[in-house]
Amino acid sequence: MSFLHFLIRFQPTDSADEPESLLYAGRAVARRLLLISTSTVFGTRYLEHAFSELREVLEGVRRVLFIPHALKDHAGYLAKARAAFEEIGFGLESLHEAKDPRRSVVEAEAIFCGGGNTFRLLNSLYTMDVLPLLRKRVAEGMPYTGASAGSNLACPTIRTTNDMPIVEPPSLAGLGLVSFQINPHYLDPLPGSTHMGETRETRIREFHEENDVPVVGLREGAILRVEGESVELRGRAGARIFRRGAEPVEATPVASIEALVG
Amino acid sequence: MSFLHFLIRFQPTDSADEPESLLYAGRAVARRLLLISTSTVFGTRYLEHAFSELREVLEGVRRVLFIPHALKDHAGYLAKARAAFEEIGFGLESLHEAKDPRRSVVEAEAIFCGGGNTFRLLNSLYTMDVLPLLRKRVAEGMPYTGASAGSNLACPTIRTTNDMPIVEPPSLAGLGLVSFQINPHYLDPLPGSTHMGETRETRIREFHEENDVPVVGLREGAILRVEGESVELRGRAGARIFRRGAEPVEATPVASIEALVG
Repeated sequence: MSFLHFLIRFQPTDSADEPESLLYAGRAVARRLLLISTSTVFGTRYLEHAFSELREVLEGVRRVLFIPHALKDHAGYLAKARAAFEEIGFGLESLHEAKDPRRSVVEAEAIFCGGGNTFRLLNSLYTMDVLPLLRKRVAEGMPYTGASAGSNLACPTIRTTNDMPIVEPPSLAGLGLVSFQINPHYLDPLPGSTHMGETRETRIREFHEENDVPVVGLREGAILRVEGESVELRGRAGARIFRRGAEPVEATPVASIEALVG
Repeated sequence: MSFLHFLIRFQPTDSADEPESLLYAGRAVARRLLLISTSTVFGTRYLEHAFSELREVLEGVRRVLFIPHALKDHAGYLAKARAAFEEIGFGLESLHEAKDPRRSVVEAEAIFCGGGNTFRLLNSLYTMDVLPLLRKRVAEGMPYTGASAGSNLACPTIRTTNDMPIVEPPSLAGLGLVSFQINPHYLDPLPGSTHMGETRETRIREFHEENDVPVVGLREGAILRVEGESVELRGRAGARIFRRGAEPVEATPVASIEALVG
């Protein structure tokens, strides 16, 4: 399924309640995404390992709209994220402080969606009714960046999250900005482990017993840069790519992986 | 909340479609449950660590109804579980082979619900429409035993599962046979880990940011035996009990824990 078909599938059939100034895209695929496995790589500061990638994908942007809803403490999360973004030259506003969250998505220059609990994040966005607007803005070219839960949110569903389902969103459908799934914080089986809970690979195999969508297991430090139809693995760690009925494939940055996840 | 109140809360308001031979309980709390953290403890055979507990809770039972739906391969799972149950003197029939799943729940002497993916398990039971019948039979005194996903299913919801949400059940509400949550395969933080994904304790803390229900983190090898109002920790491993706004408490078998989870 091409991204264009994907996008069309996700366009709401009734757009009457959307602000008139927004036109649906679909004529051109303008998506520009940075999907980060983990906000913090062990031994570095918050988002530090992604600073150069963030600077590049956010070129020309002055202020970024932050989505802190995966964590409970929105104000504390904003302070932490703002310090990181200011260090690389961007202002940060937060969706939780917006009087009109939908309007603030419409006017955003770019998005950064932080990690935490993916069910809570998705549930909040359904409550604020901003998912269709976010899809539309990304299709128009607004850069979307996210880490961990924020990367999962960009997928067709959040069915490959590692998180506990602490709340029940009305649906597990995500933004669908890409046509594949991401498993963030991807973890290889621990050699010699005596724990009998499922390994991550077992969980993803179970996902493929029920779903036919490729899954990119993004190790901590790995980053996906998506630009139009191109999907590039970047960062300092690799990915393990799972497709239904096929052996998993390893990818090492920098690598173009769109052929593996299409 | 007492178990009696809990049971009443979970009784469907319209029981017209239930077989007439079944009467709702509520006059007496007859529940008899065995909730096992993991079917297999490292270095032992399937269910072996729970054999003596299963024999005790299933005293007087000849045939047990197996629920294999947490795994995809029902037939393979049945063969494995049947070998274990036959070794300790019980016949095993499987819900997946029943022509009329509801009738087979009505007629069951006891239940064993196997582990696997909890979302898939719950979704299958909703599809077969057997959840209200299972609640009713347990309230009447039919023994219910389960491991891992099967233990999670006995809780008010499956919101404390460790599993990936590979399918979307219509609701995360479980059987509600107990008034607390279980987190099976409970895992203590790994000392020296550099992995930045959430620890199990962090996940349960996040659960308590959104829910006010006690959580029993059952380590592998730990077993809960529930009889009427009594909740006893048994088995070969301990539990960590989490309550909203309180420090976690350790429990070591054998221990009565109903005061901690009420």
